[in-house]
Amino acid sequence: MASSFTLSLAGGKTTDVFFLDSIKALSDKLSGYGRRVLWVFDSNSRNLFTSLPANCVILPSGEHFKNWSSVERIISAALDAHLARDSVFIGFGGGVVCDMTALAASLYMRGCSLVLVPTSLLCMVDASIGGKSAIDFKGAKNLVGTFYPAKDVLISAACLRTLPEAEYHSGLGEVIKHAFLSSDDELYSFLCSSHDSIVSRDREALTRMLELSLKVKAEYIQRDPEERKGIRQALNLAHTFAHALESIDNFNVKHGVAVAWGLSRAAWCGYAAGVTSAELRDRIDALLRLYDFDIDRRIERGRWLDFQAAVAKDKKNLSGTVRFVLLEDMGVPVLRELDSEIVKIAVISAPGRKNG
Amino acid sequence: MASSFTLSLAGGKTTDVFFLDSIKALSDKLSGYGRRVLWVFDSNSRNLFTSLPANCVILPSGEHFKNWSSVERIISAALDAHLARDSVFIGFGGGVVCDMTALAASLYMRGCSLVLVPTSLLCMVDASIGGKSAIDFKGAKNLVGTFYPAKDVLISAACLRTLPEAEYHSGLGEVIKHAFLSSDDELYSFLCSSHDSIVSRDREALTRMLELSLKVKAEYIQRDPEERKGIRQALNLAHTFAHALESIDNFNVKHGVAVAWGLSRAAWCGYAAGVTSAELRDRIDALLRLYDFDIDRRIERGRWLDFQAAVAKDKKNLSGTVRFVLLEDMGVPVLRELDSEIVKIAVISAPGRKNG
Repeated sequence: MASSFTLSLAGGKTTDVFFLDSIKALSDKLSGYGRRVLWVFDSNSRNLFTSLPANCVILPSGEHFKNWSSVERIISAALDAHLARDSVFIGFGGGVVCDMTALAASLYMRGCSLVLVPTSLLCMVDASIGGKSAIDFKGAKNLVGTFYPAKDVLISAACLRTLPEAEYHSGLGEVIKHAFLSSDDELYSFLCSSHDSIVSRDREALTRMLELSLKVKAEYIQRDPEERKGIRQALNLAHTFAHALESIDNFNVKHGVAVAWGLSRAAWCGYAAGVTSAELRDRIDALLRLYDFDIDRRIERGRWLDFQAAVAKDKKNLSGTVRFVLLEDMGVPVLRELDSEIVKIAVISAPGRKNG
Repeated sequence: MASSFTLSLAGGKTTDVFFLDSIKALSDKLSGYGRRVLWVFDSNSRNLFTSLPANCVILPSGEHFKNWSSVERIISAALDAHLARDSVFIGFGGGVVCDMTALAASLYMRGCSLVLVPTSLLCMVDASIGGKSAIDFKGAKNLVGTFYPAKDVLISAACLRTLPEAEYHSGLGEVIKHAFLSSDDELYSFLCSSHDSIVSRDREALTRMLELSLKVKAEYIQRDPEERKGIRQALNLAHTFAHALESIDNFNVKHGVAVAWGLSRAAWCGYAAGVTSAELRDRIDALLRLYDFDIDRRIERGRWLDFQAAVAKDKKNLSGTVRFVLLEDMGVPVLRELDSEIVKIAVISAPGRKNG
């Protein structure tokens, strides 16, 4: 059994998102793509297969390898397999694999078909839909990429069974971010009420959480597929902080963990700037603590200049000014410049921390 | 004084093509793009400027440098200059510079504005319009790229005054190709009747030739902007042969010269396959000879397998078969597979050659 929905994107393009309730259903769907296919795994996701398909590339795992030389390996493999523009690139793995497979598919012969099979929670709720392909460049996360939506995204909660705890936890950071970007409180309420079944990865709870979370993201994407209207930028809530943290931490902190921290920082800055109510700020922090995120982390004072430089490199830096996504209310994001003193206090003092 | 026309492309995008009749008019137009601009030159086109603008990259000149490391230099310069998504990349030079500036602009922060100023005839009539960005990859020409139309293309015949003769001659190869892709014979007749003023680069003749040639290309592009409908492929007339020749010649032969040779080969193969009339084949060869193209060149017998392998790598290779563009008539291109014996005879025997 499978449910599905379709996203309508720029230029008449669409993405079909399929929810497949077993590994068997996933395999059946995958076998329908024929033989002119290139599979891209990383050293983790390859283990989900007992025997590997022909025409496959296995990339080393991790953000450190999210660079041109990995993309070059995918393109080389496609060329060696004599694939043409009518072939299909299947990215099977987490966000790094999916982002790079998408970039390679968009570049090879100026564009092949793309299918993504996200195997991490983070990638299911974030990277796999929305058409953002990317690699990192000189320490700037996702600086280089294209808008290239997948034709199909295949999501199966069954893939999450063996996901390491830290990866699963990281994905929840993005899910919580989506909860506060939604103008109804369905996802927020579900996260509050179903904590235990979510952390124990109950399959029904997972499927419900995935559907609600993707629904929020899909809404923003459809209204502004190529991030030209200031709508889709809202999905970057928490990300200016998160990317800078990741950058100065040399990408050791998990992305969703950085997002959770950034969400708390954005809530505090929004409060300090008179945009976010104290009540919403506290609700955000409370949900993040419920899911065991460390929002008390502080940037050492001596690293403030590094952090500030990393913020300036962020992609939301338009015409030299840095605009942060802040929340006026649940589902009401706004883009604002922030006084650097406010940002400094938010990241080096971690105001509002429990043991402050 | 300037004339202009607008191309309507996929996803509501447009390209404005401006014909500017002096260097002064070109400079005035360029100064309107403001200060958040990155200029890309090569070691030739930089000489058109007495003093270089701020934020510029000067790439080494030539097809050998049409690779990722050049694109990386453009992206690095943009990052160092703190450019954001609202900035403008200006590619100023021949096809290599324009193709790579377009690729960098499409990738930097997933897409900045792009302005192209072609300074060679080849680039004016070919690479600058149509939105194909590219680099070469492992000997396969333009294997990696994106569809990313320029916002503006600025064309001035004045830039052609100092173009080396060999470069100018090469550009005429693409112009002649366009003449046979046009369903009216305006460009064909103009090339036949105005040979002397064209080769002496009379400015009025040049402007007329540029406008007629771009009109032909624009028609194919607008009907099939992302080469999905089998219409735009027609512009690849002669190119399967040309790319393979360039590949086995290690890119020493000039592109337009290879296209002229390929056009003659395509005419002969079309004739051999019963698609092209003897009369059209002869008309093609006659015009190519009038403009002094060496269509008698032969591939050495011992290099046939290399040539064949290069053909198989061509981007028009769909699902493992190679389809060539042949001409049923002026302006009536068709895509056909060709028996490899026909191709072999066409390239190693050069049938129809004058001193054969």
